[in-house]
Amino acid sequence: MSRIAVIITDMFQDVEYQEPADAFRIAGHDIVHVGLRADSLVKGEHGAVVTIDRAVHDVSADDFDALLIPGGYSPDKLRVDPDAVRFTREFFTKNKPVFAICHAAQLLITAQVLEGRRITGWMSIVQDIKNAGAEYVDTEVVVDKNLVSSRKPDDIPAFIRESLAMLDKKR
Amino acid sequence: MSRIAVIITDMFQDVEYQEPADAFRIAGHDIVHVGLRADSLVKGEHGAVVTIDRAVHDVSADDFDALLIPGGYSPDKLRVDPDAVRFTREFFTKNKPVFAICHAAQLLITAQVLEGRRITGWMSIVQDIKNAGAEYVDTEVVVDKNLVSSRKPDDIPAFIRESLAMLDKKR
Repeated sequence: MSRIAVIITDMFQDVEYQEPADAFRIAGHDIVHVGLRADSLVKGEHGAVVTIDRAVHDVSADDFDALLIPGGYSPDKLRVDPDAVRFTREFFTKNKPVFAICHAAQLLITAQVLEGRRITGWMSIVQDIKNAGAEYVDTEVVVDKNLVSSRKPDDIPAFIRESLAMLDKKR
Repeated sequence: MSRIAVIITDMFQDVEYQEPADAFRIAGHDIVHVGLRADSLVKGEHGAVVTIDRAVHDVSADDFDALLIPGGYSPDKLRVDPDAVRFTREFFTKNKPVFAICHAAQLLITAQVLEGRRITGWMSIVQDIKNAGAEYVDTEVVVDKNLVSSRKPDDIPAFIRESLAMLDKKR
């Protein structure tokens, strides 16, 4: 069983959080919601509500086995927070699994961890991904070392499948 | 008097549209709202409503003297539309004034017009701006050739001042 941090704030894409988080729980993993303020509520684009368990300021990648970054406009809001950027970068320096969907790559760009990597993501940020030195691949899921990435809600089944497979390998 | 296109869609930052557009009208300029579908309504983050006059598919920079790009999440939605990207790029190839605030630089990144330019913009996209080959300047307004840029709503007075000055010079 893995302990998975979900880094999330307002305007997250609802199903890009809910469906992977539900699948991870059903597979026996623990989900911890990490955000800007502990005990605050954050709201998805379509009204889903999540309670933040831990402030990102107070946690490190050492506390977790993997990181899920849902999309929507949540990554745009998180990437201005130095602790959110530091926390995200730690999963790469420690080679721990990161599951990134839709706009999640925005947080990875600010964390400067994409140079030389293969990744997919939402079509609006393709040029940002390329400019960050990564190879953009237009497909439902890309697995590159510790990173699983997908483009959009339609890709969620493939995203969950490859994320669970990576967690299984780490056991 | 100049004819100014405002390229805009849903989730624009309300005052980053309203205040410059009002100031341009008061100074005697014409405002034309360009969006994804003519005669549609688009809505700001805080509820402002704008009627789209012309579909971006049907216009070119030849039809206008300048371009205003309000921020919010409107640029993220516009940059996936090839005509919005083409239209934006034309203002640079024709050396016509472009007024870009907040997230507006996202559209400029996809249009690939920022290499070697000086620009400011919203703090979440600083790394994207740098990766696009531009020099990011953290100040209320930057004027670089045909481009006037600002960071956020607080910068609007300086943004309007320099935009009007550039329109005056073009007369």
